Amino acid sequence: MQYPEAIAKLIDSYMKLPGIGSKSATRLAFYTIDMDETTVKEFAESLLQAKKDLHYCSICGNITDTDPCEICRDTSRNQQEILVVEQPKDIMALEKMDDYHGLYHVLHGVLSPMDGKGPEDLNIAPLIKRLQHSDVNEVIIATNASPEGEATAMYLARLIKPAGIKVTRLAHGLSVGSDIEYADEMTLQRAVEGRQEM
Amino acid sequence: MQYPEAIAKLIDSYMKLPGIGSKSATRLAFYTIDMDETTVKEFAESLLQAKKDLHYCSICGNITDTDPCEICRDTSRNQQEILVVEQPKDIMALEKMDDYHGLYHVLHGVLSPMDGKGPEDLNIAPLIKRLQHSDVNEVIIATNASPEGEATAMYLARLIKPAGIKVTRLAHGLSVGSDIEYADEMTLQRAVEGRQEM
Repeated sequence: MQYPEAIAKLIDSYMKLPGIGSKSATRLAFYTIDMDETTVKEFAESLLQAKKDLHYCSICGNITDTDPCEICRDTSRNQQEILVVEQPKDIMALEKMDDYHGLYHVLHGVLSPMDGKGPEDLNIAPLIKRLQHSDVNEVIIATNASPEGEATAMYLARLIKPAGIKVTRLAHGLSVGSDIEYADEMTLQRAVEGRQEM
Repeated sequence: MQYPEAIAKLIDSYMKLPGIGSKSATRLAFYTIDMDETTVKEFAESLLQAKKDLHYCSICGNITDTDPCEICRDTSRNQQEILVVEQPKDIMALEKMDDYHGLYHVLHGVLSPMDGKGPEDLNIAPLIKRLQHSDVNEVIIATNASPEGEATAMYLARLIKPAGIKVTRLAHGLSVGSDIEYADEMTLQRAVEGRQEM
């Protein structure tokens, strides 16, 4: 006996999502059938709507339903700072902090020779163009602390510094509230390297 | 800054699925936006189609796009045995084994006083009716080996046995290929209790 076609298709669709294997997809599909009809309709509509309405900002690469995005249009923000992130999600995290009021630029990934991702696969050329036609005086690189994130940060610094623009990197060290005992070696090393006078 | 409405709605939809919290939902939503349009359309359609086409078999409670379901319609199957499971998924697992050729009955849950689930909330009354109007001579109870599954099995046995129908329960013991060293106490206890002569 096979699953009825409708559920087999739904399982297939769920399996296309990241981190969802055949068992999880089956569980989700059966759960969907037990959901009320309005909720399932809303789900289907939100999928189509998101795909239809959303695109990347032509200036910074952030996800948006307008172009330019809300942040790029906001002239009250500091136009002299650009903070470079890997993904649009990172912007959300930084905006929640409500302490940075400059502009952003989304790379949509990091340099990763293993995955065949070079500079031309990232949103880098538009960043350079942007810097040429603006009065930005500081680029803050906020790629993740992974080897690829570090390499990308270094690459960008070498590319941008010659233009006389200050390039900085977010500080790495111990998380607030974390125990030294449980910190990994890389984090501890960074914390020692980045120590500050009291 | 807030997420654009379209993505906020999609995140909300994903969060309605079991085991998906706000971080996973955000990850899935961003992934969806990067998926190609056809795939997203297929996903939306499969959701609506599954909700529209699928229902529970009026005889056994299995999930089906026909009524009665494929198994209930199959007269070549042994009409004298009914195997009782908790969920339609369990039928799939048993059918894969390709060793049981009788009928099924899906309870859609187990007795669980903690969750306020009594016999009237399960697909039990239709099972009893089914037994009265058939020549079934064995009911095999295949609820899970959880306390609720055991209680449900016991309840069903007490309900069905007086009608002179044989009630059996799937064997519990060590999994094939498992090490005694790593087996939990309950499983070991069951394995000892159910020991068989060689």
